[in-house]
Amino acid sequence: MNYRMIGYLLGIVLLIEAGLMLIPATVSLIYGEATMPFLATVAILLAIAIPLTVKKPKNTRIYARDGFITVASAWILLSAFGALPFVIGGAIPNYIDAFFETVSGFTTTGSTILREVESLPRGILFWRSFTHWVGGMGVLVFMLAILPSDNGRAMYLLRAEVPGVTKGKLVPKMRQSALILYGIYVVLTVIEAICLLCTGMPLYDSLVNAFATAGTGGFSVKDGSIGAYGNPAAEWVVAVFMLIFGINFNIYFLLLVKRFKDILKSEELRIYIIICTVATAVIAANICTSISGLGVADSIRAAFFQVTAIISTTGFSTADFNLWPSLSKTVLLIFMFLGACTGSTSGGLKISRVILVIKNAFRSVRKTISPRSVSVVRLEGEVLSEDTVKSASNHITVYLSILMISTMLISIDGFDFETNFTAVLSCISNIGPGFGAVGPMGSFADYSYFSKLLLSLVMLAGRLEFIPILVLFSPSAWKKH
Amino acid sequence: MNYRMIGYLLGIVLLIEAGLMLIPATVSLIYGEATMPFLATVAILLAIAIPLTVKKPKNTRIYARDGFITVASAWILLSAFGALPFVIGGAIPNYIDAFFETVSGFTTTGSTILREVESLPRGILFWRSFTHWVGGMGVLVFMLAILPSDNGRAMYLLRAEVPGVTKGKLVPKMRQSALILYGIYVVLTVIEAICLLCTGMPLYDSLVNAFATAGTGGFSVKDGSIGAYGNPAAEWVVAVFMLIFGINFNIYFLLLVKRFKDILKSEELRIYIIICTVATAVIAANICTSISGLGVADSIRAAFFQVTAIISTTGFSTADFNLWPSLSKTVLLIFMFLGACTGSTSGGLKISRVILVIKNAFRSVRKTISPRSVSVVRLEGEVLSEDTVKSASNHITVYLSILMISTMLISIDGFDFETNFTAVLSCISNIGPGFGAVGPMGSFADYSYFSKLLLSLVMLAGRLEFIPILVLFSPSAWKKH
Repeated sequence: MNYRMIGYLLGIVLLIEAGLMLIPATVSLIYGEATMPFLATVAILLAIAIPLTVKKPKNTRIYARDGFITVASAWILLSAFGALPFVIGGAIPNYIDAFFETVSGFTTTGSTILREVESLPRGILFWRSFTHWVGGMGVLVFMLAILPSDNGRAMYLLRAEVPGVTKGKLVPKMRQSALILYGIYVVLTVIEAICLLCTGMPLYDSLVNAFATAGTGGFSVKDGSIGAYGNPAAEWVVAVFMLIFGINFNIYFLLLVKRFKDILKSEELRIYIIICTVATAVIAANICTSISGLGVADSIRAAFFQVTAIISTTGFSTADFNLWPSLSKTVLLIFMFLGACTGSTSGGLKISRVILVIKNAFRSVRKTISPRSVSVVRLEGEVLSEDTVKSASNHITVYLSILMISTMLISIDGFDFETNFTAVLSCISNIGPGFGAVGPMGSFADYSYFSKLLLSLVMLAGRLEFIPILVLFSPSAWKKH
Repeated sequence: MNYRMIGYLLGIVLLIEAGLMLIPATVSLIYGEATMPFLATVAILLAIAIPLTVKKPKNTRIYARDGFITVASAWILLSAFGALPFVIGGAIPNYIDAFFETVSGFTTTGSTILREVESLPRGILFWRSFTHWVGGMGVLVFMLAILPSDNGRAMYLLRAEVPGVTKGKLVPKMRQSALILYGIYVVLTVIEAICLLCTGMPLYDSLVNAFATAGTGGFSVKDGSIGAYGNPAAEWVVAVFMLIFGINFNIYFLLLVKRFKDILKSEELRIYIIICTVATAVIAANICTSISGLGVADSIRAAFFQVTAIISTTGFSTADFNLWPSLSKTVLLIFMFLGACTGSTSGGLKISRVILVIKNAFRSVRKTISPRSVSVVRLEGEVLSEDTVKSASNHITVYLSILMISTMLISIDGFDFETNFTAVLSCISNIGPGFGAVGPMGSFADYSYFSKLLLSLVMLAGRLEFIPILVLFSPSAWKKH
């Protein structure tokens, strides 16, 4: 293992975090709040990062294993130091709570241990939402855009980072594609913030809500999430952008280069749109008929908002869907597993992966009926290799194993099954709220510190699609090879 | 498709059912109850079966597809006619309710739509429990033992019938192995009934409870299930026999031929015993500390009983585990997925299949860490083929897809999520009770007829491990090839 190079890369990540922290510090300054929590953290970050990065190692070669360990460590360190401003400023006095909150931020989960947020300083809340935006695209893609990618090292890092079943690179150069993705991400965020401003939302709120949407995170600066604004136009804007950030970023690249035909051919996009439309219709009908006093227009808006909020794994809310009828809750629960498209900032299993595995299973049934038929699994019109199918089904197995074991472990705290199961599900799919006590109006505050640490690990495992975290905790990875 | 031969085989199944129905008719006679419900059904069965079986078809060749369709149809027809005595006698006035109850019987599920059973005639209750015993070993294995297996046809039938990842045939001859399995089954049932008699349980109760245990069914003739007897010795007997009927029947064959070394080598058996022991300890500690007034001995007995009842998918109860603390409920819930060993009468995913898929997923992680390492998946010491691994993971995919979609569909009835999810889980794994309103003291009575029919189908699909039911409902299976 090239410890020197791993240390160098982690040092750079921490330097970037120090730089990023100057932004919330500025916000604090503008609102006349204490900047000390941020400046003290920046000092600590610099004290650690500068010795690591002062000299670039001669041997810059790193292998897959080193890449996975670097990525996993980077996310853990970012969260570990990112939690400091909350503790130093006293917003979240306990470090484990602050760590949970920061992991939830960087992994774009949005689960919170705070019971109310409106009394917190605006600089602190800005940092909390900003971690979503930073985490959303992956700090590593950010790093890739800055570092030269001369020796295939970047490839390993990206493989560990980009979510989903990646097919087809945007442009051959890694650095260039990172810059394009980042450009699309920034532009879409800015458009959303402007749209929110136009609905009458204050600038500060427009910015933090755009950050939380872009990263599909879902931290809010209001106790009642987006619903608290009582602003239907803003709800529509956020809902549409949640839908947008759940789409594969390749699609926006294809839009830029005007390859509209390729967009229409995207099977995953088509299924995503169909699923969202059907689910909105079903839930709107369901809540309209069972909640008295809820009109048709309000039902459609609430249904569309919650469908996009959950399927994109953002986790914002405009209503306490915990109180919705059973059918609507079950549809949302299935979306908690599903997630949105590959190559978006969303979490969950990803639509293409689920489709792939289901197609494959039913192909095997067809083969039983007509043993001599030759059938293959196609996605986006292309025949998929056995390896792609296998890796998707292994991914789902690891996902379900972690879900089950973690549910069992946190159930020691004594909450009801619905709460525990959806708490873990929400964390592993990086959504935010679950049902029961961790519903949209609840919080994770009452879990024990053991459960909070476990759930932090589950969020990281889900965000990095398991392999980096499993490698980090696998004794054999640390052996000399 | 050889319709003539399929009709002939189905005719034989119905003849067998007519014969079996004479046993509860005799019980009714003994207790001085009406025998008409059974005799009328026997008459109907004979009227349909005799024309089908009067002449053996010249062409007896059937292929895989025909085999699957025969098996699926046989189970549906058995249940459709088996439901008649309940309706004719007035015990269950509605036919759909009676159909659900009979499917639940033959599939050895044990879910009930009855709110109380103690007022029902003893002959009717005998038939209800007897369907577990008949279903347990599969009517088709029964049929195989009677029919000559001259042309490989039997092979297709058995493949559709025997649950789990079957490895290693007992004896080369199909008919002979069916007879051996059936012998073991009968002997174990008789031993259990005698043990129950020794604990002071009446003969009738000993018999029906032994039937329900042997089939891992779980219908009881008491409203409070086995707990109602207030007989700790009987609870231990039933618990031990639930454990026994969850073990692969190959193990008993190996016992008979004194190949003890091979028994010790069985990985699945070892894991099954370890899981049951650890779970009993965890649940006993959990309920002992959280339920006031429950002593250590009572906790261990209750925990062991419920662990074996759920993992073997029998579904008997001695306590309302619905009221147990969260950790215990979550362990039981995981067992609802798991089930017991391959080649037993239990349902669920089966331990070997789950181990296989998890081993395979973590092997792929190891391969990522050390790409040049060659690693294979072993089970019972043998290297497993890619096809075995693939078929296990496809099975789990189909299982989860059906679980999710059915939960969504029955949630239209408006029950809470815990009830709906565990109702479907309980049916697909052929357990019996779930949590919430379908808990051990609840019933499926309040679901709509649509949900009851869907759940009946789910029980059948789970019992036959999906392929026969999927083939039956697949339009392409009915096309000319």
